[in-house]
Amino acid sequence: MCRRAEITDFFRQLQSDIAKQLEDADGIGSFRIDEWARPGGGGGVSRVMSGGRIIEKGGVNFSAVWGKATHAMLHSLRIPATEDMDFYATGVSIVMHPNHPYVPIIHMNVRYFEMDDAHWWFGGGIDLTPHYVDEAQAKLFHAGLKEVCDKHHPSYYQKFKEWADDYFFIPHRSETRGVGGIFFDHLKDTEDFTKVKRFNFVQDVGRHFAPTYAQLIHLNEHKSFTEREVDWQYHRRGRYVEFNLVYDRGTKFGLETDGRTESILMSLPPHARWSYNHKTIKGSPEQATLNYLKKGIQWI
Amino acid sequence: MCRRAEITDFFRQLQSDIAKQLEDADGIGSFRIDEWARPGGGGGVSRVMSGGRIIEKGGVNFSAVWGKATHAMLHSLRIPATEDMDFYATGVSIVMHPNHPYVPIIHMNVRYFEMDDAHWWFGGGIDLTPHYVDEAQAKLFHAGLKEVCDKHHPSYYQKFKEWADDYFFIPHRSETRGVGGIFFDHLKDTEDFTKVKRFNFVQDVGRHFAPTYAQLIHLNEHKSFTEREVDWQYHRRGRYVEFNLVYDRGTKFGLETDGRTESILMSLPPHARWSYNHKTIKGSPEQATLNYLKKGIQWI
Repeated sequence: MCRRAEITDFFRQLQSDIAKQLEDADGIGSFRIDEWARPGGGGGVSRVMSGGRIIEKGGVNFSAVWGKATHAMLHSLRIPATEDMDFYATGVSIVMHPNHPYVPIIHMNVRYFEMDDAHWWFGGGIDLTPHYVDEAQAKLFHAGLKEVCDKHHPSYYQKFKEWADDYFFIPHRSETRGVGGIFFDHLKDTEDFTKVKRFNFVQDVGRHFAPTYAQLIHLNEHKSFTEREVDWQYHRRGRYVEFNLVYDRGTKFGLETDGRTESILMSLPPHARWSYNHKTIKGSPEQATLNYLKKGIQWI
Repeated sequence: MCRRAEITDFFRQLQSDIAKQLEDADGIGSFRIDEWARPGGGGGVSRVMSGGRIIEKGGVNFSAVWGKATHAMLHSLRIPATEDMDFYATGVSIVMHPNHPYVPIIHMNVRYFEMDDAHWWFGGGIDLTPHYVDEAQAKLFHAGLKEVCDKHHPSYYQKFKEWADDYFFIPHRSETRGVGGIFFDHLKDTEDFTKVKRFNFVQDVGRHFAPTYAQLIHLNEHKSFTEREVDWQYHRRGRYVEFNLVYDRGTKFGLETDGRTESILMSLPPHARWSYNHKTIKGSPEQATLNYLKKGIQWI
């Protein structure tokens, strides 16, 4: 029970289910499927949508890779390289960049890593990056995550919410990436949490993603906007690029361990913009958004 | 002779001279000047042009900063943190992003770092990133750099050219950033090279920059182009962002040591684009450019 094959099958099916639900939410775009093999062992399936009705560029990646753990990989995972070790890693990663400035960017990742029977863990998270923060929607988003967490343990939501605040943070901008969400890593078995319980939680997080994003699309897709909002959207995407290339551990891990570049960097936006010392106008919706980009906001 | 004050004065004047020459070459754009202070000691002057006739976004930074060397700084410089150390660093950094796809992106940096009288070094370089590689112009560019290098030592050009090939390289793309140039670091005094000789070389590199870029602007500014070339230009800028945020040591050093973010990231382009698995057409000018993006090309 709860062996790597079962976990892998769940993730593979999850990728397919999510892609289907996102296609339904978009209504026009469809995912292109690319299968790839990893020279050292395993491979993956990338599903990428470009130019949908709402989803301008989005990817839903599944991978299951294995082999000898390289020095770079162990270093990146902060595991002391004591001996010849095998690893197995599988997961689903998603980033969606909408063309509509009032539809938020969203990210989800669920993953499982195993060195041997005694050393395994789950990780993952969902976080939301609205170009314009709508407080009611941020609360709705967090309430949904809390509900998923509360089903599994009363401490999960607050702990994983704070972890997301810390993780999805851009130190050189003193800004969070967005309104946060949940982030967790190294979820192992303890007296309270068997492997089955951990896996059940990760499954529920994975299943929560697509309906959540479909709802956020439907709540915002009919809002009208002008060039001004698109300009701001492109600047916010610039920040997203900064976070992903400078800080994101998954991106670093992928690039340092010779992962498939196009699958790793599918998280980057279709267009981004940088202006020197870009300023917002006092009292503007853009400035209101910046005021929300900080750690420690209790949305619920 | 050749103390930090003299070196600093040279860099400050160089910034001003280069800005003037770039304004002349652009003909319309002018640099906006921002002075800034560093909380721990020192500061700088950022000169930034936006929306010039040719220069869409470009920055010429001067800084002279000092203080206690932090652990992050020493780690970034790969210096063992044995004791309480002071540092002094000054230099000029430039990146120019033209609006014209046939005018190349260019970068220059010249810098001086000092821990104490016995521990100092110069570093720097100039490299060129054409959106479309023109072989004759790449040769011209390298010939100019060779001439500067040869004035100072017969080994300099080949050594620093190879260093640039290795440094301005994007491993996850297996591409060089552009056609290279020269890169050097940790230039200290030895029997053959006094501090004065090292400084003279760095001065010549600094003075070489503006006339070189002015010539490259004039050689290309009258070429006509379409949306196709701009699309490719934006994709190449995406690669520039990847290099700068993932690999560039100056950027990492700046972000890790709490440098002024807007001055460090003035190197990022005004717009960039990412498409999943972007492919060039066989036999196209875009593919011809990709074929030039490798190490070890002997341009001369």
